[in-house]
Amino acid sequence: MADLSAGTGVPVPTIKYYLREGLLPPGRPLARNQAEYGPAHVRRLKLVRALADYGGLSIAAIAGLVRHLDDPGVAGGTLLAEAQPAVTPPPEPGGGAGAGRARRHVADLLARKGWDRLAAHPSAATLTGVLASLLELGLDDVLDRMDDYAAAAEAAAATDVRILGDVSDRERAVEVVVLGTLLGDTLIAALRRLAQAHLAGEACTG
Amino acid sequence: MADLSAGTGVPVPTIKYYLREGLLPPGRPLARNQAEYGPAHVRRLKLVRALADYGGLSIAAIAGLVRHLDDPGVAGGTLLAEAQPAVTPPPEPGGGAGAGRARRHVADLLARKGWDRLAAHPSAATLTGVLASLLELGLDDVLDRMDDYAAAAEAAAATDVRILGDVSDRERAVEVVVLGTLLGDTLIAALRRLAQAHLAGEACTG
Repeated sequence: MADLSAGTGVPVPTIKYYLREGLLPPGRPLARNQAEYGPAHVRRLKLVRALADYGGLSIAAIAGLVRHLDDPGVAGGTLLAEAQPAVTPPPEPGGGAGAGRARRHVADLLARKGWDRLAAHPSAATLTGVLASLLELGLDDVLDRMDDYAAAAEAAAATDVRILGDVSDRERAVEVVVLGTLLGDTLIAALRRLAQAHLAGEACTG
Repeated sequence: MADLSAGTGVPVPTIKYYLREGLLPPGRPLARNQAEYGPAHVRRLKLVRALADYGGLSIAAIAGLVRHLDDPGVAGGTLLAEAQPAVTPPPEPGGGAGAGRARRHVADLLARKGWDRLAAHPSAATLTGVLASLLELGLDDVLDRMDDYAAAAEAAAATDVRILGDVSDRERAVEVVVLGTLLGDTLIAALRRLAQAHLAGEACTG
Protein backbone atom coordinates (compact mmCIF):
# COMPACT_ATOMS: atom_id res chain seq x y z
CA MET A 1 0.00 0.00 0.00
CA ALA A 2 2.97 2.28 0.62
CA ASP A 3 4.09 1.63 -2.97
CA LEU A 4 0.59 2.33 -4.28
CA SER A 5 0.61 5.60 -2.35
CA ALA A 6 4.06 6.56 -3.64
CA GLY A 7 3.11 5.71 -7.23
CA THR A 8 -0.05 7.80 -7.26
CA GLY A 9 0.57 10.54 -4.71
CA VAL A 10 -2.58 9.52 -2.80
CA PRO A 11 -2.00 9.33 1.00
CA VAL A 12 -2.31 5.88 2.65
CA PRO A 13 -5.25 6.88 4.91
CA THR A 14 -7.16 8.03 1.80
CA ILE A 15 -6.44 4.71 0.06
CA LYS A 16 -7.76 2.87 3.13
CA TYR A 17 -10.88 5.01 3.04
CA TYR A 18 -11.42 4.26 -0.68
CA LEU A 19 -11.01 0.52 0.03
CA ARG A 20 -13.62 0.68 2.83
CA GLU A 21 -16.04 2.58 0.57
CA GLY A 22 -15.61 0.07 -2.27
CA LEU A 23 -14.05 2.59 -4.69
CA LEU A 24 -11.00 0.37 -4.99
CA PRO A 25 -11.00 -3.46 -5.11
CA PRO A 26 -9.02 -5.17 -2.30
CA GLY A 27 -5.45 -6.19 -3.06
CA ARG A 28 -4.28 -9.83 -3.30
CA PRO A 29 -3.49 -10.95 0.31
CA LEU A 30 0.20 -11.78 0.78
CA ALA A 31 0.67 -12.04 4.53
CA ARG A 32 -1.14 -10.74 7.57
CA ASN A 33 -1.40 -6.94 7.14
CA GLN A 34 0.07 -7.14 3.66
CA ALA A 35 -1.56 -7.18 0.23
CA GLU A 36 -0.37 -6.82 -3.32
CA TYR A 37 -1.70 -4.03 -5.54
CA GLY A 38 -1.21 -4.19 -9.30
CA PRO A 39 -1.39 -1.79 -12.27
CA ALA A 40 -5.22 -2.10 -12.26
CA HIS A 41 -5.25 -0.60 -8.75
CA VAL A 42 -3.02 2.27 -9.83
CA ARG A 43 -5.30 3.00 -12.78
CA ARG A 44 -8.50 2.80 -10.75
CA LEU A 45 -7.02 5.00 -8.04
CA LYS A 46 -6.06 7.66 -10.58
CA LEU A 47 -9.57 7.49 -12.06
CA VAL A 48 -11.18 7.93 -8.63
CA ARG A 49 -8.89 10.90 -7.88
CA ALA A 50 -9.67 12.57 -11.20
CA LEU A 51 -13.41 12.18 -10.60
CA ALA A 52 -13.11 13.49 -7.02
CA ASP A 53 -10.87 16.44 -7.96
CA TYR A 54 -12.42 17.60 -11.24
CA GLY A 55 -15.61 15.61 -11.79
CA GLY A 56 -17.42 17.39 -8.97
CA LEU A 57 -18.68 14.05 -7.60
CA SER A 58 -19.25 12.94 -4.03
CA ILE A 59 -17.64 9.71 -2.80
CA ALA A 60 -21.08 8.04 -2.93
CA ALA A 61 -21.54 9.09 -6.56
CA ILE A 62 -18.07 7.81 -7.48
CA ALA A 63 -18.90 4.47 -5.80
CA GLY A 64 -22.00 4.25 -8.01
CA LEU A 65 -19.98 5.04 -11.11
CA VAL A 66 -17.31 2.49 -10.29
CA ARG A 67 -19.99 -0.20 -9.97
CA HIS A 68 -21.24 0.90 -13.41
CA LEU A 69 -17.71 0.66 -14.84
CA ASP A 70 -17.36 -2.89 -13.52
CA ASP A 71 -20.76 -3.96 -14.87
CA PRO A 72 -20.18 -6.41 -17.77
CA GLY A 73 -23.71 -5.62 -19.00
CA VAL A 74 -22.52 -2.32 -20.48
CA ALA A 75 -22.19 -2.96 -24.21
CA GLY A 76 -19.29 -1.66 -26.28
CA GLY A 77 -21.19 0.09 -29.07
CA THR A 78 -23.51 2.12 -26.89
CA LEU A 79 -21.03 3.12 -24.21
CA LEU A 80 -21.77 6.81 -24.41
CA ALA A 81 -25.52 6.34 -24.26
CA GLU A 82 -25.39 3.77 -21.44
CA ALA A 83 -22.82 5.54 -19.29
CA GLN A 84 -24.58 8.88 -19.59
CA PRO A 85 -27.50 8.46 -17.19
CA ALA A 86 -25.04 7.52 -14.43
CA VAL A 87 -23.11 10.74 -14.90
CA THR A 88 -26.01 13.08 -15.62
CA PRO A 89 -27.21 15.10 -12.60
CA PRO A 90 -30.81 14.34 -11.65
CA PRO A 91 -33.18 16.79 -13.33
CA GLU A 92 -35.21 19.19 -11.24
CA PRO A 93 -38.90 19.31 -12.11
CA GLY A 94 -39.74 22.76 -13.47
CA GLY A 95 -42.69 24.14 -11.51
CA GLY A 96 -42.86 27.90 -12.14
CA ALA A 97 -44.44 30.01 -14.85
CA GLY A 98 -41.46 29.59 -17.17
CA ALA A 99 -41.72 25.78 -17.20
CA GLY A 100 -44.36 25.55 -19.95
CA ARG A 101 -42.48 27.92 -22.27
CA ALA A 102 -39.20 26.14 -21.53
CA ARG A 103 -40.74 22.76 -22.37
CA ARG A 104 -42.03 24.03 -25.72
CA HIS A 105 -38.67 25.59 -26.59
CA VAL A 106 -36.78 22.39 -25.76
CA ALA A 107 -39.25 20.33 -27.85
CA ASP A 108 -38.75 22.75 -30.77
CA LEU A 109 -34.97 22.58 -30.40
CA LEU A 110 -34.97 18.75 -30.36
CA ALA A 111 -37.16 18.73 -33.48
CA ARG A 112 -34.94 21.28 -35.28
CA LYS A 113 -31.80 19.27 -34.50
CA GLY A 114 -33.39 15.91 -35.37
CA TRP A 115 -32.97 14.85 -31.74
CA ASP A 116 -36.67 13.97 -31.21
CA ARG A 117 -35.96 10.48 -29.91
CA LEU A 118 -33.99 12.07 -27.03
CA ALA A 119 -37.08 13.77 -25.55
CA ALA A 120 -36.97 11.40 -22.55
CA HIS A 121 -33.19 11.77 -22.02
CA PRO A 122 -32.33 13.08 -18.51
CA SER A 123 -30.40 15.94 -20.08
CA ALA A 124 -33.52 17.14 -21.92
CA ALA A 125 -35.18 17.53 -18.49
CA THR A 126 -32.09 19.31 -17.11
CA LEU A 127 -32.12 21.63 -20.11
CA THR A 128 -35.82 22.39 -19.56
CA GLY A 129 -35.15 23.15 -15.89
CA VAL A 130 -32.26 25.52 -16.63
CA LEU A 131 -34.27 27.34 -19.32
CA ALA A 132 -37.28 27.64 -17.00
CA SER A 133 -35.03 29.22 -14.32
CA LEU A 134 -33.61 31.68 -16.84
CA LEU A 135 -37.10 32.59 -18.09
CA GLU A 136 -38.35 33.08 -14.50
CA LEU A 137 -35.55 35.63 -14.11
CA GLY A 138 -36.56 37.38 -17.32
CA LEU A 139 -33.44 36.30 -19.24
CA ASP A 140 -35.42 35.58 -22.40
CA ASP A 141 -32.45 36.51 -24.61
CA VAL A 142 -31.04 33.05 -24.04
CA LEU A 143 -33.93 31.53 -26.01
CA ASP A 144 -32.87 33.40 -29.16
CA ARG A 145 -29.33 32.07 -28.76
CA MET A 146 -30.13 28.41 -28.05
CA ASP A 147 -29.07 27.35 -31.54
CA ASP A 148 -25.69 29.03 -31.02
CA TYR A 149 -25.16 27.18 -27.73
CA ALA A 150 -26.36 23.93 -29.32
CA ALA A 151 -23.85 24.38 -32.16
CA ALA A 152 -21.02 24.93 -29.66
CA ALA A 153 -22.09 21.85 -27.68
CA GLU A 154 -22.31 19.78 -30.87
CA ALA A 155 -18.77 20.77 -31.79
CA ALA A 156 -17.55 19.63 -28.36
CA ALA A 157 -19.52 16.36 -28.62
CA ALA A 158 -18.13 15.66 -32.09
CA THR A 159 -14.64 16.02 -30.59
CA ASP A 160 -15.65 13.66 -27.74
CA VAL A 161 -16.82 11.05 -30.22
CA ARG A 162 -13.65 11.41 -32.32
CA ILE A 163 -11.51 10.76 -29.21
CA LEU A 164 -13.71 7.78 -28.31
CA GLY A 165 -13.28 6.46 -31.85
CA ASP A 166 -9.52 6.29 -31.29
CA VAL A 167 -9.92 4.03 -28.26
CA SER A 168 -9.87 0.32 -29.07
CA ASP A 169 -9.62 -1.19 -25.57
CA ARG A 170 -13.17 -1.60 -24.20
CA GLU A 171 -12.44 -0.90 -20.52
CA ARG A 172 -10.49 2.12 -21.64
CA ALA A 173 -13.41 3.34 -23.69
CA VAL A 174 -15.72 3.30 -20.65
CA GLU A 175 -13.16 5.33 -18.72
CA VAL A 176 -12.90 7.83 -21.56
CA VAL A 177 -16.67 8.24 -21.65
CA VAL A 178 -17.02 8.78 -17.92
CA LEU A 179 -13.98 11.01 -17.64
CA GLY A 180 -14.75 12.80 -20.87
CA THR A 181 -18.26 13.61 -19.77
CA LEU A 182 -17.42 14.81 -16.26
CA LEU A 183 -13.93 16.23 -16.64
CA GLY A 184 -14.97 17.49 -20.07
CA ASP A 185 -17.57 19.70 -18.38
CA THR A 186 -14.86 21.23 -16.19
CA LEU A 187 -12.46 21.52 -19.13
CA ILE A 188 -15.02 23.26 -21.35
CA ALA A 189 -16.17 25.50 -18.47
CA ALA A 190 -12.55 26.59 -17.85
CA LEU A 191 -11.99 27.27 -21.57
CA ARG A 192 -15.28 29.20 -21.74
CA ARG A 193 -14.24 31.41 -18.79
CA LEU A 194 -10.89 32.10 -20.45
CA ALA A 195 -12.60 32.97 -23.74
CA GLN A 196 -15.09 35.19 -21.88
CA ALA A 197 -12.25 36.98 -20.07
CA HIS A 198 -10.44 37.44 -23.36
CA LEU A 199 -13.53 38.80 -25.13
CA ALA A 200 -14.42 41.05 -22.16
CA GLY A 201 -10.89 42.44 -22.15
CA GLU A 202 -11.08 43.13 -25.87
CA ALA A 203 -14.40 44.90 -25.46
CA CYS A 204 -12.89 47.14 -22.76
CA THR A 205 -9.60 48.08 -24.40
CA GLY A 206 -10.54 47.90 -28.08
CA MET B 1 -43.85 36.42 3.43
CA ALA B 2 -46.78 34.20 2.46
CA ASP B 3 -47.19 36.32 -0.70
CA LEU B 4 -43.48 36.09 -1.47
CA SER B 5 -43.72 32.32 -1.09
CA ALA B 6 -46.82 32.12 -3.31
CA GLY B 7 -45.23 34.33 -5.98
CA THR B 8 -42.03 32.32 -6.25
CA GLY B 9 -43.02 28.79 -5.22
CA VAL B 10 -40.35 28.82 -2.51
CA PRO B 11 -41.66 27.43 0.84
CA VAL B 12 -41.83 29.87 3.79
CA PRO B 13 -39.32 27.89 5.96
CA THR B 14 -36.83 28.05 3.08
CA ILE B 15 -37.34 31.83 2.77
CA LYS B 16 -36.72 32.18 6.53
CA TYR B 17 -33.54 30.14 6.17
CA TYR B 18 -32.33 32.34 3.29
CA LEU B 19 -33.05 35.47 5.40
CA ARG B 20 -31.03 34.04 8.31
CA GLU B 21 -28.13 33.17 6.01
CA GLY B 22 -28.10 36.64 4.43
CA LEU B 23 -29.04 35.43 0.93
CA LEU B 24 -32.08 37.69 0.97
CA PRO B 25 -32.21 41.23 2.48
CA PRO B 26 -34.78 41.71 5.28
CA GLY B 27 -38.19 43.11 4.34
CA ARG B 28 -39.43 46.56 5.40
CA PRO B 29 -40.93 46.12 8.93
CA LEU B 30 -44.69 46.84 8.99
CA ALA B 31 -45.88 45.54 12.34
CA ARG B 32 -44.63 43.02 14.85
CA ASN B 33 -44.11 39.76 12.96
CA GLN B 34 -44.90 41.43 9.63
CA ALA B 35 -42.65 42.80 6.92
CA GLU B 36 -43.14 43.99 3.36
CA TYR B 37 -41.28 42.31 0.51
CA GLY B 38 -41.04 44.03 -2.88
CA PRO B 39 -40.17 43.08 -6.46
CA ALA B 40 -36.45 43.19 -5.60
CA HIS B 41 -37.03 40.38 -3.10
CA VAL B 42 -38.88 38.30 -5.68
CA ARG B 43 -36.05 38.77 -8.15
CA ARG B 44 -33.32 38.01 -5.64
CA LEU B 45 -35.18 34.92 -4.41
CA LYS B 46 -35.50 33.58 -7.97
CA LEU B 47 -31.80 34.22 -8.53
CA VAL B 48 -30.87 32.32 -5.35
CA ARG B 49 -33.12 29.40 -6.36
CA ALA B 50 -31.64 29.25 -9.85
CA LEU B 51 -28.12 29.19 -8.43
CA ALA B 52 -29.04 26.53 -5.85
CA ASP B 53 -30.91 24.32 -8.34
CA TYR B 54 -28.72 24.56 -11.44
CA GLY B 55 -25.58 26.47 -10.47
CA GLY B 56 -24.28 23.61 -8.34
CA LEU B 57 -23.47 26.02 -5.50
CA SER B 58 -23.63 25.53 -1.75
CA ILE B 59 -25.59 28.02 0.37
CA ALA B 60 -22.26 29.45 1.62
CA ALA B 61 -21.06 29.98 -1.95
CA ILE B 62 -24.34 31.68 -2.91
CA ALA B 63 -24.00 33.96 0.13
CA GLY B 64 -20.55 34.97 -1.12
CA LEU B 65 -21.88 35.63 -4.61
CA VAL B 66 -24.78 37.71 -3.34
CA ARG B 67 -22.33 39.91 -1.42
CA HIS B 68 -20.41 40.31 -4.68
CA LEU B 69 -23.60 41.25 -6.55
CA ASP B 70 -24.38 43.96 -3.97
CA ASP B 71 -20.84 45.36 -4.06
CA PRO B 72 -20.93 48.80 -5.72
CA GLY B 73 -17.21 48.44 -6.47
CA VAL B 74 -17.95 46.12 -9.40
CA ALA B 75 -17.58 48.27 -12.51
CA GLY B 76 -19.95 48.03 -15.46
CA GLY B 77 -17.47 47.54 -18.28
CA THR B 78 -15.52 44.69 -16.74
CA LEU B 79 -18.43 42.75 -15.22
CA LEU B 80 -17.49 39.47 -16.80
CA ALA B 81 -13.86 39.69 -15.72
CA GLU B 82 -14.66 40.87 -12.17
CA ALA B 83 -17.51 38.47 -11.47
CA GLN B 84 -15.58 35.50 -12.80
CA PRO B 85 -13.17 34.75 -9.93
CA ALA B 86 -16.17 34.54 -7.55
CA VAL B 87 -17.82 31.89 -9.70
CA THR B 88 -14.72 29.95 -10.73
CA PRO B 89 -14.06 26.82 -8.64
CA PRO B 90 -10.74 26.95 -6.79
CA PRO B 91 -7.98 25.28 -8.81
CA GLU B 92 -6.33 22.11 -7.55
CA PRO B 93 -2.55 22.20 -7.61
CA GLY B 94 -1.31 19.60 -10.09
CA GLY B 95 1.21 17.40 -8.34
CA GLY B 96 1.64 14.24 -10.42
CA ALA B 97 3.85 13.36 -13.36
CA GLY B 98 1.36 14.85 -15.85
CA ALA B 99 1.48 18.31 -14.25
CA GLY B 100 4.59 19.52 -16.07
CA ARG B 101 3.33 18.43 -19.49
CA ALA B 102 -0.10 19.90 -18.75
CA ARG B 103 1.44 23.25 -17.79
CA ARG B 104 3.42 23.40 -21.03
CA HIS B 105 0.36 22.52 -23.11
CA VAL B 106 -1.78 25.17 -21.43
CA ALA B 107 0.96 27.79 -21.94
CA ASP B 108 1.16 26.82 -25.63
CA LEU B 109 -2.62 27.00 -25.99
CA LEU B 110 -2.78 30.45 -24.36
CA ALA B 111 -0.03 31.67 -26.69
CA ARG B 112 -1.73 30.20 -29.78
CA LYS B 113 -5.05 31.86 -28.88
CA GLY B 114 -3.46 35.20 -27.94
CA TRP B 115 -4.64 34.68 -24.36
CA ASP B 116 -1.16 35.08 -22.80
CA ARG B 117 -2.28 37.75 -20.33
CA LEU B 118 -4.70 35.19 -18.83
CA ALA B 119 -1.90 32.89 -17.61
CA ALA B 120 -2.72 33.82 -13.97
CA HIS B 121 -6.50 33.43 -14.42
CA PRO B 122 -7.98 30.82 -12.02
CA SER B 123 -9.44 28.94 -14.99
CA ALA B 124 -5.98 28.49 -16.50
CA ALA B 125 -5.00 26.63 -13.29
CA THR B 126 -8.22 24.57 -13.42
CA LEU B 127 -7.50 23.70 -17.04
CA THR B 128 -3.96 22.63 -16.13
CA GLY B 129 -5.32 20.43 -13.33
CA VAL B 130 -7.90 18.72 -15.55
CA LEU B 131 -5.31 18.11 -18.28
CA ALA B 132 -2.82 16.73 -15.75
CA SER B 133 -5.48 14.28 -14.48
CA LEU B 134 -6.26 13.16 -18.02
CA LEU B 135 -2.54 12.70 -18.80
CA GLU B 136 -2.03 10.71 -15.57
CA LEU B 137 -4.74 8.36 -16.85
CA GLY B 138 -3.03 8.05 -20.23
CA LEU B 139 -5.75 9.98 -22.09
CA ASP B 140 -3.21 11.85 -24.19
CA ASP B 141 -5.61 12.05 -27.14
CA VAL B 142 -7.27 15.03 -25.47
CA LEU B 143 -4.12 17.09 -26.01
CA ASP B 144 -4.43 16.74 -29.79
CA ARG B 145 -8.03 17.96 -29.60
CA MET B 146 -7.57 20.94 -27.29
CA ASP B 147 -7.94 23.40 -30.16
CA ASP B 148 -11.29 21.81 -31.07
CA TYR B 149 -12.54 22.16 -27.49
CA ALA B 150 -11.19 25.71 -27.30
CA ALA B 151 -13.05 26.59 -30.52
CA ALA B 152 -16.32 25.19 -29.10
CA ALA B 153 -15.79 27.11 -25.84
CA GLU B 154 -15.03 30.30 -27.78
CA ALA B 155 -18.27 29.95 -29.71
CA ALA B 156 -20.21 29.61 -26.44
CA ALA B 157 -18.36 32.61 -24.91
CA ALA B 158 -19.07 34.74 -27.99
CA THR B 159 -22.76 33.96 -27.51
CA ASP B 160 -22.45 34.87 -23.81
CA VAL B 161 -20.92 38.24 -24.70
CA ARG B 162 -23.60 38.91 -27.33
CA ILE B 163 -26.33 38.30 -24.74
CA LEU B 164 -24.49 40.55 -22.26
CA GLY B 165 -24.27 43.23 -24.94
CA ASP B 166 -28.07 43.32 -25.12
CA VAL B 167 -28.38 44.09 -21.41
CA SER B 168 -28.44 47.82 -20.59
CA ASP B 169 -29.47 47.71 -16.91
CA ARG B 170 -26.31 47.36 -14.77
CA GLU B 171 -27.76 45.22 -11.96
CA ARG B 172 -29.27 43.03 -14.64
CA ALA B 173 -25.93 42.67 -16.37
CA VAL B 174 -24.31 41.33 -13.18
CA GLU B 175 -27.11 38.78 -12.87
CA VAL B 176 -26.65 37.72 -16.48
CA VAL B 177 -22.94 37.23 -15.95
CA VAL B 178 -23.33 35.17 -12.80
CA LEU B 179 -26.26 33.15 -14.07
CA GLY B 180 -24.78 32.84 -17.52
CA THR B 181 -21.52 31.51 -16.20
CA LEU B 182 -22.98 29.00 -13.74
CA LEU B 183 -26.25 28.00 -15.37
CA GLY B 184 -24.51 28.23 -18.73
CA ASP B 185 -22.18 25.42 -17.62
CA THR B 186 -25.22 23.22 -16.85
CA LEU B 187 -26.95 24.27 -20.07
CA ILE B 188 -23.92 23.52 -22.24
CA ALA B 189 -23.27 20.23 -20.39
CA ALA B 190 -26.89 19.14 -21.02
CA LEU B 191 -26.67 20.08 -24.71
CA ARG B 192 -23.33 18.28 -25.01
CA ARG B 193 -24.83 15.08 -23.51
CA LEU B 194 -27.76 15.28 -25.96
CA ALA B 195 -25.39 15.78 -28.88
CA GLN B 196 -23.22 12.89 -27.64
CA ALA B 197 -26.28 10.63 -27.36
CA HIS B 198 -27.37 11.65 -30.85
CA LEU B 199 -23.95 11.02 -32.36
CA ALA B 200 -23.57 7.71 -30.49
CA GLY B 201 -26.98 6.60 -31.77
CA GLU B 202 -26.01 7.52 -35.33
CA ALA B 203 -22.80 5.56 -35.05
CA CYS B 204 -24.74 2.47 -33.90
CA THR B 205 -27.61 2.50 -36.38
CA GLY B 206 -25.96 4.24 -39.35
